[in-house]
Amino acid sequence: MSNNKRVLTGITTSGTPHLGNLVGAIRPAIKSSGDQSTSSFLFLADYHSLIKSQDPNLTHGSSFEIAAAWLACGLEPEVVTFYRQSDIPEIMELAWILSCITAKGLMNRAHAYKAALAHNSEQGISDLDKGIFMGLFNYPVLMAADILAFNADVVPVGKDQKQHIEMTRDIAARFNHLYGDVFNLPEALISESTGVLPGIDGQKMSKSYNNTIPIFLEEKALLKMVRKIKTNSLEPGVPKDPTNCNVFKLFKAFASETETKDLESRYYEGIAWGEAKNVLFELLNAELSELRENYNEIIGDRKKLEETLVHGAGKARETASVVLKDVRHAVGIKSFTS
Amino acid sequence: MSNNKRVLTGITTSGTPHLGNLVGAIRPAIKSSGDQSTSSFLFLADYHSLIKSQDPNLTHGSSFEIAAAWLACGLEPEVVTFYRQSDIPEIMELAWILSCITAKGLMNRAHAYKAALAHNSEQGISDLDKGIFMGLFNYPVLMAADILAFNADVVPVGKDQKQHIEMTRDIAARFNHLYGDVFNLPEALISESTGVLPGIDGQKMSKSYNNTIPIFLEEKALLKMVRKIKTNSLEPGVPKDPTNCNVFKLFKAFASETETKDLESRYYEGIAWGEAKNVLFELLNAELSELRENYNEIIGDRKKLEETLVHGAGKARETASVVLKDVRHAVGIKSFTS
Repeated sequence: MSNNKRVLTGITTSGTPHLGNLVGAIRPAIKSSGDQSTSSFLFLADYHSLIKSQDPNLTHGSSFEIAAAWLACGLEPEVVTFYRQSDIPEIMELAWILSCITAKGLMNRAHAYKAALAHNSEQGISDLDKGIFMGLFNYPVLMAADILAFNADVVPVGKDQKQHIEMTRDIAARFNHLYGDVFNLPEALISESTGVLPGIDGQKMSKSYNNTIPIFLEEKALLKMVRKIKTNSLEPGVPKDPTNCNVFKLFKAFASETETKDLESRYYEGIAWGEAKNVLFELLNAELSELRENYNEIIGDRKKLEETLVHGAGKARETASVVLKDVRHAVGIKSFTS
Repeated sequence: MSNNKRVLTGITTSGTPHLGNLVGAIRPAIKSSGDQSTSSFLFLADYHSLIKSQDPNLTHGSSFEIAAAWLACGLEPEVVTFYRQSDIPEIMELAWILSCITAKGLMNRAHAYKAALAHNSEQGISDLDKGIFMGLFNYPVLMAADILAFNADVVPVGKDQKQHIEMTRDIAARFNHLYGDVFNLPEALISESTGVLPGIDGQKMSKSYNNTIPIFLEEKALLKMVRKIKTNSLEPGVPKDPTNCNVFKLFKAFASETETKDLESRYYEGIAWGEAKNVLFELLNAELSELRENYNEIIGDRKKLEETLVHGAGKARETASVVLKDVRHAVGIKSFTS
């Protein structure tokens, strides 16, 4: 096994992947996974998805689509370790072990739980725990297990996930204190907003705002979506401000520097919104058509995708089983002959 | 697989097994496991023990001793399914799945957690969750997973565990409601105090009172322990009341009806305490010497004991894996080709 730094990325398996995911998460992760001085672990967090969804078709379908999406966008399963969380029993086992040394008070302070309490409070509900399930409350422990089962060194996360990495470090440090040094203390790599991509309404592109442009739209649907992007009412011929324009921001996220400068000039020259949207569409379509083809090919061969993930799980377990062996030994859960 | 009712018994892997355990738990469970109309699952709850112990040697040693104790007392591993909880990854996986549908409010009401809160409150500690870990808080979910992973029909428990079975039923019913009928609703079989055995001080024999007579004491140590049993100060020749006597209660738990009647008469005739204790010792020693021999033989062959448990785990997983396949399918965690 190499001594490369281990970089671990969890992939939420819900929703249809959109351009915001592509620019903010998928591309940076795939790019960094090519770095030969690190070992990349990327996993589909399908057991986390049960916290929010009780729809088995959605759970299964989303996991499938997201796996296909990452591969279509260029993730190389032979270069990285790409697996489903649910294929790694070591993670679940570690989650229990960690829960035995995780203070309940730490979980009381977790953002997601506190947000749920606040929501109940705003609604005037007197039982603040109403409608809150143990999956949500335990979530930071499972996330710690996701990370520590691979003794990851670096975990790239958004700012909203920073607390979870801090909790993981707390839990790992407590384990090491009680049982001896087994875990690395992982470091969060906070992605400084890779330029938050606007959705078609100008807010941050997010499925919660229902304003996304899915990555794998067919051409016509993509054009229709681009046409919907909110602009102001300036007439053709009137100079326009690129810095404050949703169409321009989307363009910039996919264009080369030259292309960007070129469109910028045309804004100052008073490009019509219809034309600006055509330029954006052409760029996006050129970029996305290859991904779309990849995607259609991948989802057309379920067997191959399944094999890819089963193979990834095998690789992942080679690492996780070594860590768990140390963990079990440390806590005293082991064969009577060892 | 047979359609026998499944009876599941969890075995706490802490402390040194004593006569109270033998009479109250081990013997009844072994007796009922011989019932050919049921399938008995008995497991060493070693992952539960991490809630209370952070001493790896104790965790490991206790599990080993308790496994040996049950076998020494007559548990037949070929007749029942006897396994370590930690050898069954399906249990840990199910615990996570169940936690996603278990209301946090339900856990807030669990006896063990509430007792810990009350303890803090009595101590005047303002943070009531101080010193409470997630293992304790999650305990009823793991217990539900222990039971439901085998779709057990009947769970023999003490009164103090009744709430956990009710919670398990609640969790199972909620799962079935959300995802379709996967789980039996298990029934608690409350053991009406098989005559609580007194310890040497007259209180209930319990390791918390430090008043136990261990099962596998060597002869001399056993005699010494019997000599310590608390009696009153009535002189030899003075008639004594058997109904209210610790020596007599212990005798009765192991003696035949005839032997019991015989000693009863001798009480009324004014047997001396020393003599009554000799009679008790002779009876216990006759009963326990065989168990002691068995025990010494078993702990002398770690390899064989390990093999017995590994074999048991294999049998257990045959059942649990079928249940988990149904569970995974129900929640939508499954192969992309299925």
